[in-house]
Amino acid sequence: MNQKEIIRLLKDMSLDEKIGQLIQLSGEFFSANDISIGPIEKLGISKKMVDLTGSILNVVGAKETHEVQERQMQKQPHHIPVLFMSDVIYGYKTILPIPLGLGATWDLKNVRQAFVNAADEASAAGNHVAFAPMVDVVRDARWGRVLESPGEDPYLNARFAENMVNGLQENLKNKKGQAACVKHYAAYGAVEGGKEYNSVDMSISNLFQNYLPPYKAAVAAGSEMVMTSLTTLNGVPATASKALLSTILRQKWGFDGVIISDYASIFELIKHGFAANEIQASEEAFNASVDIDMKSPCYANGLQPLVTNGQLDEEKIDQAVLRVLNLKNRLGLFEDPFYGASPEREAKSILTSTKRQHARKLSQESLVLLQNDNHVLPLNKEQKVVLIGPYASRKTLIGMWAIHGNPQDTITIADGMKRFIPDLKVYQGTDLQRSKKLLKNLGFLNEKEIAEAISTPKQEQKNNQEALEAAKKADTVVLALGEETYEDGEAGSKTDLRLPKNQRQLIDQLANLGKKIILVLINGRPLVLNDIKDKVDAIIEAWFPGTEGGNAIADVLFGECNPSGRLTMEFPYSSAEEPLYYNHLSTGRPESNSQHKGRFVSKYLDCPSGALYPFGYGLSYCDVDYSSLQLSANEITPDQDIKVSINVTNTGKCSTTETVQLYFRDEVASVAQPVKRLINFQKVQLKPMEKKPVEFVLSLSELSFFDNTGNEKIEPGFFTIMVGPNSRDVSSARLYFAG
Amino acid sequence: MNQKEIIRLLKDMSLDEKIGQLIQLSGEFFSANDISIGPIEKLGISKKMVDLTGSILNVVGAKETHEVQERQMQKQPHHIPVLFMSDVIYGYKTILPIPLGLGATWDLKNVRQAFVNAADEASAAGNHVAFAPMVDVVRDARWGRVLESPGEDPYLNARFAENMVNGLQENLKNKKGQAACVKHYAAYGAVEGGKEYNSVDMSISNLFQNYLPPYKAAVAAGSEMVMTSLTTLNGVPATASKALLSTILRQKWGFDGVIISDYASIFELIKHGFAANEIQASEEAFNASVDIDMKSPCYANGLQPLVTNGQLDEEKIDQAVLRVLNLKNRLGLFEDPFYGASPEREAKSILTSTKRQHARKLSQESLVLLQNDNHVLPLNKEQKVVLIGPYASRKTLIGMWAIHGNPQDTITIADGMKRFIPDLKVYQGTDLQRSKKLLKNLGFLNEKEIAEAISTPKQEQKNNQEALEAAKKADTVVLALGEETYEDGEAGSKTDLRLPKNQRQLIDQLANLGKKIILVLINGRPLVLNDIKDKVDAIIEAWFPGTEGGNAIADVLFGECNPSGRLTMEFPYSSAEEPLYYNHLSTGRPESNSQHKGRFVSKYLDCPSGALYPFGYGLSYCDVDYSSLQLSANEITPDQDIKVSINVTNTGKCSTTETVQLYFRDEVASVAQPVKRLINFQKVQLKPMEKKPVEFVLSLSELSFFDNTGNEKIEPGFFTIMVGPNSRDVSSARLYFAG
Repeated sequence: MNQKEIIRLLKDMSLDEKIGQLIQLSGEFFSANDISIGPIEKLGISKKMVDLTGSILNVVGAKETHEVQERQMQKQPHHIPVLFMSDVIYGYKTILPIPLGLGATWDLKNVRQAFVNAADEASAAGNHVAFAPMVDVVRDARWGRVLESPGEDPYLNARFAENMVNGLQENLKNKKGQAACVKHYAAYGAVEGGKEYNSVDMSISNLFQNYLPPYKAAVAAGSEMVMTSLTTLNGVPATASKALLSTILRQKWGFDGVIISDYASIFELIKHGFAANEIQASEEAFNASVDIDMKSPCYANGLQPLVTNGQLDEEKIDQAVLRVLNLKNRLGLFEDPFYGASPEREAKSILTSTKRQHARKLSQESLVLLQNDNHVLPLNKEQKVVLIGPYASRKTLIGMWAIHGNPQDTITIADGMKRFIPDLKVYQGTDLQRSKKLLKNLGFLNEKEIAEAISTPKQEQKNNQEALEAAKKADTVVLALGEETYEDGEAGSKTDLRLPKNQRQLIDQLANLGKKIILVLINGRPLVLNDIKDKVDAIIEAWFPGTEGGNAIADVLFGECNPSGRLTMEFPYSSAEEPLYYNHLSTGRPESNSQHKGRFVSKYLDCPSGALYPFGYGLSYCDVDYSSLQLSANEITPDQDIKVSINVTNTGKCSTTETVQLYFRDEVASVAQPVKRLINFQKVQLKPMEKKPVEFVLSLSELSFFDNTGNEKIEPGFFTIMVGPNSRDVSSARLYFAG
Repeated sequence: MNQKEIIRLLKDMSLDEKIGQLIQLSGEFFSANDISIGPIEKLGISKKMVDLTGSILNVVGAKETHEVQERQMQKQPHHIPVLFMSDVIYGYKTILPIPLGLGATWDLKNVRQAFVNAADEASAAGNHVAFAPMVDVVRDARWGRVLESPGEDPYLNARFAENMVNGLQENLKNKKGQAACVKHYAAYGAVEGGKEYNSVDMSISNLFQNYLPPYKAAVAAGSEMVMTSLTTLNGVPATASKALLSTILRQKWGFDGVIISDYASIFELIKHGFAANEIQASEEAFNASVDIDMKSPCYANGLQPLVTNGQLDEEKIDQAVLRVLNLKNRLGLFEDPFYGASPEREAKSILTSTKRQHARKLSQESLVLLQNDNHVLPLNKEQKVVLIGPYASRKTLIGMWAIHGNPQDTITIADGMKRFIPDLKVYQGTDLQRSKKLLKNLGFLNEKEIAEAISTPKQEQKNNQEALEAAKKADTVVLALGEETYEDGEAGSKTDLRLPKNQRQLIDQLANLGKKIILVLINGRPLVLNDIKDKVDAIIEAWFPGTEGGNAIADVLFGECNPSGRLTMEFPYSSAEEPLYYNHLSTGRPESNSQHKGRFVSKYLDCPSGALYPFGYGLSYCDVDYSSLQLSANEITPDQDIKVSINVTNTGKCSTTETVQLYFRDEVASVAQPVKRLINFQKVQLKPMEKKPVEFVLSLSELSFFDNTGNEKIEPGFFTIMVGPNSRDVSSARLYFAG
């Protein structure tokens, strides 16, 4: 349709129809048997408004979306098609590494392509909008949702944000894309104590400098939608924040797409103590500029009376509805309400060998080699290797929020390794978790599943002994440990970031045998590893590596692929060291470089400062030297960019991929600035013994900061420019800006 | 002098002399052998400016201050006396419980009197300004300086602030007082991660509502001085914050007293990345309104060139000097530069029996009975009691920041208990700390002291066995455990809030014997106790109880005094649960009272929510019932106060002191409000079986909140009014404000 036709349609719609476009309900309202009465009554929405619902959450599959679309369009007086929306955060059926692993690839191009692939799969299955990318900056490993984010850095998350949006939307016009919905706007990642849904409180400069850039980049890249955060920011729920939504997002950034609440978050304005009832909740959210109310009764019941009572101008409703209709139109739904989805396309698009290959490539790149004492890795096929651990043969490698993925499609670690060692011996060694209480708290396992997850003491002992016996006969133990899927993700907040006790005991037992131990970790957040790192010879952080995870891990273990992942969240020494991030302020008494000595510096008494493994850190099978950092000039001006160059040399005997990272510090500013901020990076391929110059072009605008009114500025003075393989080990030079 | 004379003096002073008044140096510059060259050179201050220094830090004692004062006055062209300032936070020689213990008394009147006493002692010893009260709101037990604060609540800290200021300054004119210097302005207690000196970042509403009230109350009570915080607030160091110092403190609150930096904090503006050099640091701090530069070379070297170059108006210097001279004049120093101090007065004033009695009373009141299974306490003299633990006979009960106190003056727990059981057997049981690394990190112990602190394995085993043998023969073990003094206080940040492993092992060993265990804890912060609470029968949180600590503990153990302390900081379940505080926001998905069930609520998976022992919590030897909460009306107006009444009934057989606490919640507000806020309390004496009505008068202004522009407001709507014995167990009623 053209815009005139859309406007004509809008003018012809009743108020109820319009409000219907601003409602999103979940699949149980639209099941094959039409409408189940239960959920409607529970939510308190009339059947009429359910029928008029403009978008549907989490109904996927070409067949199912066809059926629901046809049925719903019939019910709509103007036969307006519904939008199908769902969480496609890191793949639809071909599951990628969790986003924290995608972040570790630092590979924007391949991640973008992966999102093209995910959109292809999801669109074939009838989905229109992916609730992605999730780009909340995450500085606290206690929070379970760190797995959904690329990491802790505003710059890097912003680059991922735009590439993920571009990937999802690349084929939007060809009906093979997904409308992106960047989330969770804003600053959800800063929940206090890493405790899920907790309040967020921060200064304006912190918000603008550290938390907003990824959302802004997604919007600039054309993200069709934005989802609000469930949390408060400085006492005001994001879902009703005029400052965040109207002023910054709409006015400052010029976003004219659809804003959707998170699940029930308009209704939750009442629990927040921000609205007294559903009607006020509707008013607050709508006036802040939220177009669609996800899974709550508020708009369905609240907007009508607000218009009738004259508290809300119907013209404002029209504006919101127009945004929704325009999105439907941009997807071509008025012409093809199925958006090209069909069971045939689904069968041809999903889990293809090409998509699996690409997922495997990303999975390889996501693995971070944290430790490799005496070059114990890569393995060779002649070694006597045994695979031990609860993740040895486990198919649940796709993580908590791959909601459409199927673990049965997954390549296990054992599968992957058997390509290299066909007669590989595999032992469980211990359970993944032996705390019934914890398993119960996860909320996803029933009594039977919990009982099955925990071996009897006798069985556990047998598993244990078999594994130890096997280890005695081997040279090298590959030990696959980690977290239970549901220990991470939404509402997966934890205060203890160590591996479970039984897993740590297994490490101790194996360490006592004196064998080489290669620890492969499957988990969704930074863990506390300092109590075990000296007991093993190598550590591969494999995250939840996705459908092709087992292949990727084996590729790296046996050197078919040289690991190149770099951490995008710091690994702490202690759970109580969180929040932890590399781009912190100096303080007046930094531990190093302070006039104060001994006790009176910024540190903990009982825990080393900073990270065990810092931001940007990761090893490969060869060492790379950095030398000759140079700036093309010592002074930068608005007109004259600076070239920052450095030589990198592969001193090893294999080809390698090095992620060269560029940081800076604004040495003196009217708002004290972080000790380091990432502003650029390059992935460089190096042949054995190859030396390459790497050059960054640095412009003055990259050196800006945000003050406490939200203004971006650059003040005269000195800047430290730093280049290195991670945020800790850098070479530095000094640059001046005269103003 | 009168103001005219002061002005005349000021006009006659050279610029150097004036700047001298704005400098504070520490004692080593003014030792008996006059000036040691070392520190001067290190600090880079000329001998001339040292001679002109207007105030001196940490020189105490009547004799010493006399000598230094005489010497310095001779050097001053106008013979202006110096001000002697020092940390007198919780007593000078008669040491009170640490302020976190003073907070637990909820006894404003007695705390005020204790500060009158402390001022009497300190003034007798020649000190003029006490760097107290420290009233930073503290929400994170990882931070070591929580021991110096009354606690986590803005209202309660404000009440303590005004009473501490009033106590110190009550006899200011009689030369038996101390000028108060409230600190650390502002929000030092919110260092991120509880890590010492770390950055502070928060919203304006949070700052005004939760952090500023105690400082404001101290200023309103007439605190002569204010000390800045060492930290940044939202990127701006407090020591150079025009917003904090000029706008809020001077203009909004009308403070015209002396503002002093914290130790070296003007110089540290350079480390913060806020100033490029000493001159800029001076300019920033001075223009923000800091009058005195404590222990840094900045003002001494920086103010002169600023005036000479025309960057700083000498008239502004005059204003600052005038504030300093006026303070000296208010103390009468121009007439009596020794402020009535003399060795004779010192001898008569210090550690008097009256002062010790008062300290003992406060120490009694500070003890918090956390647990008392089956009324195992109080003890009777007939029981076979043995005293075990590293704190059994230890004199270091005065805590980290009683810098003028002498542990030798302290009554130990054994001393106290022997009044009841003369032949009490006492055993160390285990060392206080067995980690050499930790003891070294504390920064105060030399190699020899560390070696002495850690028993040989053989000796430790012997100590252990003797204690266990003795326990076997007893009915009841009083077990005195805790933290090393230097594990708390400034730069005493920790990530592990449990007792040391060796102490926990001793608990396990004793628990295995099946004896009654009374755990007495000596420590400076909330600890993690949930792993040990079920292994003991009673727990008394005794803090660092001060000079009379041993007597007070024994009084409570044997029931001579019924414990009445109530926690002013929450005790967490896990170290990684911090920050933790009762007056948090609801969130949209509170764990209780949410439409969401199971997993998707605000909580941790592996740790209970909230506090093991909540804010306001504490037991006594009798139970008190609360009944019949009533409001005098259901609606409140600006003109009409409400009476909140409740009946409290002592159901026990002893007299008791109950702290009746009044909380409220603003149910709906444009800035979401805490689930509870303390606004009043009463300490009520109850005879055995006595029932008393308690009445609070509540006015509308008490129900206000602060928005994100720092404005105080009251919005129409409902308020929940809650009364109870602690912040968890409350009765509630509803109140309406029509606007």
